[in-house]
Amino acid sequence: MDQNELRTLLGAFKNGSLGEDEMLERLRHLPFEDVGDAMVDHHRSLRQGFPEVIFGAGKSAGQIERIMVALAARGNAILVTRIDEAKAQAVKEAFPAACYHADARCLTLEPRPIDKRGRGTVLVISAGTSDLPVAAEALVTLRMLGNDAEHLYDVGVAGIHRLLARRETLFTASVLIVVAGMEGALPSVVGGLVDRPVIAVPTSVGYGASFGGIAALLGMLNSCAAGVTVVNIDNGFGAAVAASKINRE
Amino acid sequence: MDQNELRTLLGAFKNGSLGEDEMLERLRHLPFEDVGDAMVDHHRSLRQGFPEVIFGAGKSAGQIERIMVALAARGNAILVTRIDEAKAQAVKEAFPAACYHADARCLTLEPRPIDKRGRGTVLVISAGTSDLPVAAEALVTLRMLGNDAEHLYDVGVAGIHRLLARRETLFTASVLIVVAGMEGALPSVVGGLVDRPVIAVPTSVGYGASFGGIAALLGMLNSCAAGVTVVNIDNGFGAAVAASKINRE
Amino acid sequence: MDQNELRTLLGAFKNGSLGEDEMLERLRHLPFEDVGDAMVDHHRSLRQGFPEVIFGAGKSAGQIERIMVALAARGNAILVTRIDEAKAQAVKEAFPAACYHADARCLTLEPRPIDKRGRGTVLVISAGTSDLPVAAEALVTLRMLGNDAEHLYDVGVAGIHRLLARRETLFTASVLIVVAGMEGALPSVVGGLVDRPVIAVPTSVGYGASFGGIAALLGMLNSCAAGVTVVNIDNGFGAAVAASKINRE
Amino acid sequence: MDQNELRTLLGAFKNGSLGEDEMLERLRHLPFEDVGDAMVDHHRSLRQGFPEVIFGAGKSAGQIERIMVALAARGNAILVTRIDEAKAQAVKEAFPAACYHADARCLTLEPRPIDKRGRGTVLVISAGTSDLPVAAEALVTLRMLGNDAEHLYDVGVAGIHRLLARRETLFTASVLIVVAGMEGALPSVVGGLVDRPVIAVPTSVGYGASFGGIAALLGMLNSCAAGVTVVNIDNGFGAAVAASKINRE
Amino acid sequence: MDQNELRTLLGAFKNGSLGEDEMLERLRHLPFEDVGDAMVDHHRSLRQGFPEVIFGAGKSAGQIERIMVALAARGNAILVTRIDEAKAQAVKEAFPAACYHADARCLTLEPRPIDKRGRGTVLVISAGTSDLPVAAEALVTLRMLGNDAEHLYDVGVAGIHRLLARRETLFTASVLIVVAGMEGALPSVVGGLVDRPVIAVPTSVGYGASFGGIAALLGMLNSCAAGVTVVNIDNGFGAAVAASKINRE
Amino acid sequence: MDQNELRTLLGAFKNGSLGEDEMLERLRHLPFEDVGDAMVDHHRSLRQGFPEVIFGAGKSAGQIERIMVALAARGNAILVTRIDEAKAQAVKEAFPAACYHADARCLTLEPRPIDKRGRGTVLVISAGTSDLPVAAEALVTLRMLGNDAEHLYDVGVAGIHRLLARRETLFTASVLIVVAGMEGALPSVVGGLVDRPVIAVPTSVGYGASFGGIAALLGMLNSCAAGVTVVNIDNGFGAAVAASKINRE
Amino acid sequence: MDQNELRTLLGAFKNGSLGEDEMLERLRHLPFEDVGDAMVDHHRSLRQGFPEVIFGAGKSAGQIERIMVALAARGNAILVTRIDEAKAQAVKEAFPAACYHADARCLTLEPRPIDKRGRGTVLVISAGTSDLPVAAEALVTLRMLGNDAEHLYDVGVAGIHRLLARRETLFTASVLIVVAGMEGALPSVVGGLVDRPVIAVPTSVGYGASFGGIAALLGMLNSCAAGVTVVNIDNGFGAAVAASKINRE
Amino acid sequence: MDQNELRTLLGAFKNGSLGEDEMLERLRHLPFEDVGDAMVDHHRSLRQGFPEVIFGAGKSAGQIERIMVALAARGNAILVTRIDEAKAQAVKEAFPAACYHADARCLTLEPRPIDKRGRGTVLVISAGTSDLPVAAEALVTLRMLGNDAEHLYDVGVAGIHRLLARRETLFTASVLIVVAGMEGALPSVVGGLVDRPVIAVPTSVGYGASFGGIAALLGMLNSCAAGVTVVNIDNGFGAAVAASKINRE
Repeated sequence: MDQNELRTLLGAFKNGSLGEDEMLERLRHLPFEDVGDAMVDHHRSLRQGFPEVIFGAGKSAGQIERIMVALAARGNAILVTRIDEAKAQAVKEAFPAACYHADARCLTLEPRPIDKRGRGTVLVISAGTSDLPVAAEALVTLRMLGNDAEHLYDVGVAGIHRLLARRETLFTASVLIVVAGMEGALPSVVGGLVDRPVIAVPTSVGYGASFGGIAALLGMLNSCAAGVTVVNIDNGFGAAVAASKINRE
Repeated sequence: MDQNELRTLLGAFKNGSLGEDEMLERLRHLPFEDVGDAMVDHHRSLRQGFPEVIFGAGKSAGQIERIMVALAARGNAILVTRIDEAKAQAVKEAFPAACYHADARCLTLEPRPIDKRGRGTVLVISAGTSDLPVAAEALVTLRMLGNDAEHLYDVGVAGIHRLLARRETLFTASVLIVVAGMEGALPSVVGGLVDRPVIAVPTSVGYGASFGGIAALLGMLNSCAAGVTVVNIDNGFGAAVAASKINRE
Repeated sequence: MDQNELRTLLGAFKNGSLGEDEMLERLRHLPFEDVGDAMVDHHRSLRQGFPEVIFGAGKSAGQIERIMVALAARGNAILVTRIDEAKAQAVKEAFPAACYHADARCLTLEPRPIDKRGRGTVLVISAGTSDLPVAAEALVTLRMLGNDAEHLYDVGVAGIHRLLARRETLFTASVLIVVAGMEGALPSVVGGLVDRPVIAVPTSVGYGASFGGIAALLGMLNSCAAGVTVVNIDNGFGAAVAASKINRE
Repeated sequence: MDQNELRTLLGAFKNGSLGEDEMLERLRHLPFEDVGDAMVDHHRSLRQGFPEVIFGAGKSAGQIERIMVALAARGNAILVTRIDEAKAQAVKEAFPAACYHADARCLTLEPRPIDKRGRGTVLVISAGTSDLPVAAEALVTLRMLGNDAEHLYDVGVAGIHRLLARRETLFTASVLIVVAGMEGALPSVVGGLVDRPVIAVPTSVGYGASFGGIAALLGMLNSCAAGVTVVNIDNGFGAAVAASKINRE
Repeated sequence: MDQNELRTLLGAFKNGSLGEDEMLERLRHLPFEDVGDAMVDHHRSLRQGFPEVIFGAGKSAGQIERIMVALAARGNAILVTRIDEAKAQAVKEAFPAACYHADARCLTLEPRPIDKRGRGTVLVISAGTSDLPVAAEALVTLRMLGNDAEHLYDVGVAGIHRLLARRETLFTASVLIVVAGMEGALPSVVGGLVDRPVIAVPTSVGYGASFGGIAALLGMLNSCAAGVTVVNIDNGFGAAVAASKINRE
Repeated sequence: MDQNELRTLLGAFKNGSLGEDEMLERLRHLPFEDVGDAMVDHHRSLRQGFPEVIFGAGKSAGQIERIMVALAARGNAILVTRIDEAKAQAVKEAFPAACYHADARCLTLEPRPIDKRGRGTVLVISAGTSDLPVAAEALVTLRMLGNDAEHLYDVGVAGIHRLLARRETLFTASVLIVVAGMEGALPSVVGGLVDRPVIAVPTSVGYGASFGGIAALLGMLNSCAAGVTVVNIDNGFGAAVAASKINRE
Repeated sequence: MDQNELRTLLGAFKNGSLGEDEMLERLRHLPFEDVGDAMVDHHRSLRQGFPEVIFGAGKSAGQIERIMVALAARGNAILVTRIDEAKAQAVKEAFPAACYHADARCLTLEPRPIDKRGRGTVLVISAGTSDLPVAAEALVTLRMLGNDAEHLYDVGVAGIHRLLARRETLFTASVLIVVAGMEGALPSVVGGLVDRPVIAVPTSVGYGASFGGIAALLGMLNSCAAGVTVVNIDNGFGAAVAASKINRE
Repeated sequence: MDQNELRTLLGAFKNGSLGEDEMLERLRHLPFEDVGDAMVDHHRSLRQGFPEVIFGAGKSAGQIERIMVALAARGNAILVTRIDEAKAQAVKEAFPAACYHADARCLTLEPRPIDKRGRGTVLVISAGTSDLPVAAEALVTLRMLGNDAEHLYDVGVAGIHRLLARRETLFTASVLIVVAGMEGALPSVVGGLVDRPVIAVPTSVGYGASFGGIAALLGMLNSCAAGVTVVNIDNGFGAAVAASKINRE
C-alpha cells in the first residue's frame, strides 16, 4: 500500500464513506502489509546507484540472462559472481556490453560509470597465486560498489620481507582485505602492522589437513591481532561488501 | 638505534673517523635492528591516549597487579578483560581507583577521562540473558576506546517484533555489534535491515548440538546478509576493537 | 500363518490328530512367525490408498522399472524420489502415464486421483532459489500423501519484510515445513511467528563453512524458537511424511 | 499504540486538528511501532492459559525468583526447567506452592489446575535409566501444556521383545516422543511400528564415541523410518512443546 | 504366558469351554504378548550361570544396592562396572561378600564359584600404565563370564622387542583383546603376528590431538591387519563380552 | 636362514673351521635376520590352503594381472577385492578361469575347490539394497576362506517384523555379520536377539548427516547390545576375515 | 637498495651534495625498504646451488612453462611437484632435457649435476603400494636437494618381521622419513627402533574412517615413540625439505 | 640371553654335551627371546648418560617415587614431566636432591652433571605468556638431554618487529622449536627467516574456535614455510627429544 492509496483511504474516512471501525480494521493490517514496502524504500535510498548482484553458482546461463534482462530494464548496474567462462560467454551474446573478469569469475554490466565514493582506498592483499581468484572477486566487487581498490599480491608470511617492503602501501589504506589459504596467518601479521580495519578471507587453497579452508578459517578466528574480523571461506564478495560499508564517507 | 645515534654515526663518517666499509657494515644491520623501533613509533602515534589491555584469563591477581604497576607508571589507561570478581577485588586493593564491571568481567583504570572519538554510536545488540557478559565486555571495551556505545538487549529472532519495534535505534547506529548464541541468526536479520557494518559475535551459550558456540559461529559465517563479518566465539573485546577502528573519524 | 491355517490347526488339535505337545510346539513358534503378518496387517490398514515410495538414488532405470511393475500390478500409487531426468525418461517409456516433476526430481504414478485428507493446509516455505528442489520434493510428497499443500518462496531472514508481508498465509497453515540452507535461521523466525508445528529442513546449499548443510542443521537444532523439529539435510521427503502424519484428521 | 490511541488519532484527523500530512507521517511509523503489539496479541490469544517458561540453567535462584514474582503477579502458570535441587529449594521459600520435580529438574507453579486439551495421549518412551531425566522433563512440560501424557520406560532396541510386548500402548498414542542415548536407534524401531508422528530426542548418555550425544543425534537424523523428526540433544522440553502443538485439537 | 497357561487354554478349547473364535482371539495376541517371554527363555538357557551386569556410572550407591538386592535374591552372580571406590565401600556394607577390584573399578558378587567354560585362554594385552584400568575391566568381566584369562602388559609398539619376546603367550591364546591409547597401533602389530580373533579397545589415554581416544579409535578401525574388530573407547567390558562369545566351546 | 644353513654353521663351528667369536657374531644377527622367516613359517602353517588377497582399488588391470601371475604360479587361490567390471574383464583375458562377482566387486580364482572348515554357518545380514555390495564382498570372502555362509537381506529396524520372522535363521548361525548404513541400528537389535558373536559393518549409504557412514559407525560403536564389535566403513572383507577366524574349528 | 647504491648515497652525503636531514630521511626508510633484499641475500647464500621449486597443482602447463623459462634463464635447477603426466609432456616439449618421474608426479631439470651434501643417507620407508607416490616425491626432492637417499618399501606394521629383517638399513640412516596411510603406526615402530630423527608423513590412503588421511595423521601426532615429528597429509616434499635441513653437514 | 650364556651353550655343543638337535632347538627360540636384549643393548649404547623419563600425569606421588627409587639405584639421571607442585613436593621429601621447575611442571634429578653434546644451540621461541609452560618443558628436556638451549619469548606474529629485532639469535641457532597457540602462525614466519630445522609445537592456549589447540595444530601442519615439522599439542617434551636427535654431533 503506497502513500496514494493511504491518502485515498484517509479521504474516504474523513468524508465519511468509510466508518471508524472499517478504518481501524484496514489500519490493523498495515503493520504487516506495508512493512515490506517501508523497508524496501528505506533500503533503496541507501542503495541508490549500487549494482544488483546475482550469485551465479548453480544457475544456468539462461536463468542468469533472464534475471539480467529484468534488472537491466530498470537501468541497474549488475554484478554476477561465481560464473564460469562458458556461461559468461553465453550471457554476453545477449549483453555484448557486459565485461567478463576471468580471474574473478565475475561478469559486470555498467550502463553508466559507477560513481566513486568512500573515504579512502581499500587494499586487497593476497599470498599465493591460488588465492588470486578470491582476491579478484573482492576487487571487482569493491569497484562495482564505487570504491578505490588496490591489490598487493604474492606476499606471504614465509617471506615476511616482501610484505614489509610494501609498508607504505599498507599504511595508507583505509580498509584492508587479507586473503590467505593454508595456515591463514597473513591477517595476523597485517593486523599487527596497521591500525585500520582488517577483514580476513580464508581460501580453500591447500591440501590434506587444510580441510578445504578450515585451517585458514580457524587461524583467522584465533588471530592474536585484535580487531581482525572474518568472513566465510572463499567469500571475496562478502569481504568487499563489508569493506565498502566501512569505507563509506 | 634512534635518530641521535644515527646523526652521531653520520658525523663520524663525514669527519672520517668512520670508514666507508665500517659505515656500510653498521648500516647493513640497520634493517633489522631498527625495524622494531620504527614500527613501535608508528604504532605509538596511532595509539596516543588509548588504553593498554591485559588479558586476565590464566593470570594470577599478582601477575595482573605487577603489569598494571608498570603500565600505570606511564600514565596509561588500562583495561583488564576476563578477570573474575575475586581477582578483581585483590587488584583493587592496590588500585582503589580501578572500577570493576561485574557483568563484563572487566576491570578499568582511567587516570583521566577517555577522550571521545568516532563518527557515531556503536550499537551492541544481544539476544538472551546468557549473552549479556559478552555484550558487556564489548561495551566496556568500546567506551575505553573512546566510542559512544549503546546496548539493545533481549531481542531474538524468535520474537522478531521486539527487534522491529526498535528500528530507529538500529538505523541511527554507525557500526553494529550483534551478539548471539544458539543458532546465531540475529546478525543475518540485523544485516538485512541496516546498511552499516555489522560485526557478529557468536557466544558459547546453548547445550547439546550448540557445541560451545560452533553452531552460532557457523551460522554467522554463512549469513545470507552480505557484509556481515565474524569474530571468535565469546570475543566481545575483539569485536569492540574492530568496531572502534571502523568508527574512527 | 493366517487365521485359516490356525483354524485348521485348532481343528486338528481338537479332533485329536494333533497332540498337545505338538500343538504347543507349533504355538511356541507363533510369536515370531506371525509377528510379521500381524504388523503388516496393522500397517496396511493405516496405509490404505497411500503410495508406495521408491528411493531412486543409486538404483538404475531398469531396477526402478522392475519395482514399479510389481507395485503397479497391485494398483498402488507410486512415488519415486531422487530420480534424475535421464532415468525418469527411460522409466516413462514403460509407464507413459507417469509424471516427472523436474524441479522435485520425483516421478509419480497415480492410477486414480489421490484422496484428499488432512486437517488443513501444509505450508512449505523456502528461502533462496537453490533451496527449491528440496521444497519441491516436499510438495510432491505432500500431495501424493493426500494433503493440501502450498508454497511460499523467496523469503529469507535477510529480507524479513518479505516474510512479514505474507503473515496471513503463515497464520492459516496447519503445519509448516521450512526449508533453508546457509545459516538455517528461517525456521527460528517462522517458529517465533506461528503457533503450529514447524518442521525444519536444512539444505546442502552454501559453500565454505556451510559444510554441505551442517551449518544449517546445527542452526535448526539450536533454534531459540521452542518446538521446532528437524529432519536430515535435504530430506524434503521425510519432512513431508512427518507433516502428513501431523496433518491427519 | 493500541486501538484507543488510534481512534483518538483518527478523531483528530477527522475533526481537522491533525492534517493529512501529519496523519500520514504518524501512520508511516505504524508498520514498525505496532508490529510488536500486533504479534504479541496474536500470540497471546493462542497461548491463553499456557504457562510461562524460565530456562533455569545459568540463572541464580535470586534471578529466577525475581522473574517468577513478575509472572505470578499476572496469574500465570510457571514452568522452570533445568533447575537443580538447591536452587529449587531456595525458590520454594518464596513460592511454597511451587512443586519441584527432582527427576525432571523442573519446578512448576500452577495457580489453578491446567486445562486439559489435545486430541489424545502423548507417549514418552525412554530406553535406559540414564535417559530418565530427559523423559521426565518432557513429561512435566507436556502436562503443564495441558496434554495427557504417559511414560513407557526401560525399552531398548537390544531387548526388542520388551517394546513389542507393549504394542497396544504404542498404537493408541496420538504423538510419540522417543528419548534415547548411545546409538539412538529406538525412534527408528518405534517409527517403523506406528503411523503417528514420532519426535526423537537424543540424550548425552554414553561415553567414548557417543561424543556427548552426537552419535544418537546422527542416528536419529538418519533414521530409516520416514517421518521421524529430531530435536536438540537432551531437549525434552522442546520435544514436548512440538508434541503439544501437534496434539492440539 | 507360560506353557502351563497355554496348556490350560488348549484344554479349555479341547473340552469346549472355549470356542474357536475366542481361542483365535487369544492366540491373535500371542505374537506380541509372549514374544518377550519366549525370548527371555531363549536367552536364559544361554545365560545359565552367567552374572547379571550393572553399569555403575551415574547410579548412586543406594540405587546400585537396591538393584543388587533384587538380583541377589535370585541367586545371580553380579558384576558392577564403572563403580568408584567410595560407592563400592558403601555397597559392600550391605554385601560384605562382594569383592571390589580397584584397578578395574568393578565390584563382583559370586554366590558360588563361576563355572569355567571356553575353548582356551583369552589374552588381554595392554600398552602403557594408563591403559591398565580398561584392561582390568576386561579381565574381571572375562573371569565373571567363566573364561580363563591372562594379562600381558607394558608392551607398546615403540618397544616392539618386548612384545616379540612374549610370542609364545601370543600364539597360544584363543582370543586376544588389545587395549591401547595414543596412536592405537598395537592391535595392528598383534593382528599381524597371530591368526586368532583380535578385538581392539581404544582408550581415552593421551592428550592434545588424541581427542579423548578418537586417534586410537580411528587407528584401530583403519588397521592394516585384516580381521581386527573394534569396540567403543574404554569399553573393556564390551570387548570381554565379545571375546567370551567367541571363546565358547 | 633355514635349519640346513644353521646345521652347516654348527658343523663348521664344531669342526673348528669357524671360531667362537665368528660364531657369536653370526648368531648375534640371528634375532633380526631370522625373525622374518620364523614368523612367515608360523603364518604359512596357519594359512595352508587359504587364498591370497589383492586389494584392487587404485591398482591398474595390468598391476593386478602381474601380481596374479606370480601368485598363481605357486598354486594359490586368489581373491581380488574392490575391482570394477572393466578391470575384471581385462584380467579375465589372462585368467579365463577367474570368476567375477559383480555385486561384490570381487574376482576369484580357485585352482581347486576351497576346503570347507569352520564350526558352523556365518550369517550375513543386510538392510537396504544399497548395502548389498558390502554384504556380497563379505559373502565372497567368507566362502573363499572355507566357511559356510548365508545371506539374510532386506531386514531393517524400521520393519522389525521381517527380522523377527526369520529368527530360526538367526538362532542357528555360528557368527553374524550385520551390514547397515544410515543409523546403523540393526546390529543392536540382532545383538539383543542372539548370543553369538556379532560383527557390525557400517556402510557409506545415506546422505546429509550420514556423513559417508560416520553416523552408522558411531551408532554401532555405541551399541547398547554388549559384545558387538565393529569394523571400518564398507569393510565387508575385514568383517569376513574376523568372522572366519571366530568360526574356526 | 644494494651496496653500490648505498656507497653512492654515502659519497653524496660525505661530499655535501646530500644534507644530514635528507640522509636521515633516506636511512629512515631503510629498515623496511631493504629488509627484503637483506634477507634474500641471507637466504641466497644458504641456498646456493639448490633448486627452485614450483608447486604444479592448479597451474596450467603454460603457466609452469613460463615460470620455468624465467628460472632456467638464471641457470637454476628446477623441481616441479604435483604435476601429472599430460602437463609434464607438454612442458617437456619446451624443455626436452627435463626428466619426468611418473611415480613421484615430479618434473626435474638439472642444468648440471646436483652437488652431494649431507652427513649421511636419508632413508624413506613406506608401507603399502598406495603410499609409493608420496614416498617417491620425497625421494626425488631429497636427491634434488643433494642428499643420498634410499627407499625401503613394502614394510608395514602388520608384517613386522619384514621391517625387522631390514634393521641394518634402519640403523645406518642419518634421518628417516616414514610414509604411511591407514592407521599410521609405522613411524611409532620405527621411532622405537632407531635413535635418529624420524619424520612421519601421513598419506590419504585408505577408505571409510581413514577420512582422507586424518586417522594416520592423528596416529602419528600421538605416537608413543618420543621425538617423531609430523608433516601434512601426503606432504612428501615438505618431509624431504625438513630431512635435508637436518642432514646438512 | 647374554653373550656369556651363549658361549657356554656353544662350548657345551662343541664338547658334545649338547647334541645338534638340542642346539638347534635352543637357537630356534633365539630370534624372539633375544630380540629384546639385542635391541636394548643397541639402544643403551646410544643413550649412555641420558636421563630416564617418567610421564607424571595420571601417576600418584607414591607411584612416581617408586619408579624413581628403581631408576636411581642404577645411577640414572631422571626427568619427570607433567608433575604438579604438590606431587613434586611429596617426591622431593624422598629425593631432596631433586629440583622442581615450576614453570615447566618438571622434576629433575641429576646424580652428576649432564654431559654437553650437540652441534649447536637449540633455540626455543614462544609467543604469549600462556605458552611459557610448554616452552619451559622443552627447555628443561633439552638441557637434561645435554643440549645448549636458549629461550626467545614474547615474540608473536602480530608484533613482527620484536621477532625481526632478534634476528641474530635466530640465525645462529642449530635447531629451532617454535611454541605457539591461537592461530599458530609463528613457525611459518620463523621458517621463512631461517634455513635450519624448525619444529612447531601447538599449544592449547586460546578459547572458542581455538578448540584446545586444534586451530594452532592445523595452522602449523599447513605452514607455507616448507620443512616445518609438527608435534602434538602442548608436547614440549617431544619437540625437545626430536630437536636433540637433530642436534647430535
